[in-house]
Amino acid sequence: MRAKELMDKNFVYLNCEDSVVDVSKVMEEIRRFTCPVVNDDKQLVGWITSFDITKGLREGNEKISEIMSDFEDIATVHEDDPARKAVILTANNKYVTVPVVNDDNQVIGMVRACDIVELLSNLYDIKVEKLYKAMQNQLKGVTWEELMAASALVSTKTTGKKISAEEYEANIVSSTFGEAIWATGGLEKFFAGLISVGEMVIARRVGKARR
Amino acid sequence: MRAKELMDKNFVYLNCEDSVVDVSKVMEEIRRFTCPVVNDDKQLVGWITSFDITKGLREGNEKISEIMSDFEDIATVHEDDPARKAVILTANNKYVTVPVVNDDNQVIGMVRACDIVELLSNLYDIKVEKLYKAMQNQLKGVTWEELMAASALVSTKTTGKKISAEEYEANIVSSTFGEAIWATGGLEKFFAGLISVGEMVIARRVGKARR
Repeated sequence: MRAKELMDKNFVYLNCEDSVVDVSKVMEEIRRFTCPVVNDDKQLVGWITSFDITKGLREGNEKISEIMSDFEDIATVHEDDPARKAVILTANNKYVTVPVVNDDNQVIGMVRACDIVELLSNLYDIKVEKLYKAMQNQLKGVTWEELMAASALVSTKTTGKKISAEEYEANIVSSTFGEAIWATGGLEKFFAGLISVGEMVIARRVGKARR
Repeated sequence: MRAKELMDKNFVYLNCEDSVVDVSKVMEEIRRFTCPVVNDDKQLVGWITSFDITKGLREGNEKISEIMSDFEDIATVHEDDPARKAVILTANNKYVTVPVVNDDNQVIGMVRACDIVELLSNLYDIKVEKLYKAMQNQLKGVTWEELMAASALVSTKTTGKKISAEEYEANIVSSTFGEAIWATGGLEKFFAGLISVGEMVIARRVGKARR
């Protein structure tokens, strides 16, 4: 995933000559704590946060150019940078927004912390059932019932708590990947459990074929 | 994970009687776009954003009580709520911060979007190699070399691009789970690939035993 696929194209940019008072009203209206400042070619030249605005209002500054951060102090990502770069910048520097620029240094979008939260959170929201369906698809010839039966056996063995294939199925239908990771105690353990199920399914199939 | 394990305990709270000008300086200094307003018992009674401050400064409001959002309009999480609740609130409402309260409605922390990004991003930063180690551990008796050889074969088959066991190992040592998910095109596909590797390892072992 590239930065340009993660960015919000819906943003407002400011001009050096804009009035501090006017900009404060715009930022309140669109509810943005940060805004890029651009020149006539839409190239990034500065950065405004609500902190610059409150200071500017207090001290009576008139124009955005008087209160903005300079270009050199702005962390940007290029549109073709991996989305992860924006995520790491946000996480390490506690940014609310990172501007996305193209080859000509024009601002073309904003990567926002809340959008990253939504994206990462959605990945975790994938139903565990879908992973089992992918597994069934991969282990050609295995029925869903066989898979659930093997999973229930592995779960009973791992947790020491007896669970039926039907109960197991009900669990995974209602759980998400995120919940499963928390529940099993981490990504590695979750995957180890799944591998274990795959192994058992194959073993049971081999056993049946020999009978 | 509970909200109280995700929250930042290091925050500043405001009082209804605080002056708007003083608060604007404090928020600039600590670089916070939002702050809770509490009573003498540290119970949450209001909420201030930088938008309230800019409007207050423009309109000449003096006290925080004149410009704050009322308690009824503040989304909170309880300290014992699942951390996911704060994540969902942040993602769905584009919040920057969600206050965490205890049974007495006292503010005890803040869940911030940037901290959520850091947490979720760290989960994705787990090295793929660790997942393979867990897999090897699970598939008892399989050597690391066998696992890499099977993985290289599966990868060559899936991508159509020839890769040696050594190259494959070099790849997974340097890649993270997050990168692997982006690279394979999603969690289900990544996972199907792992199952496929496990299947091949078992098949090769069975083949060897028969020879």
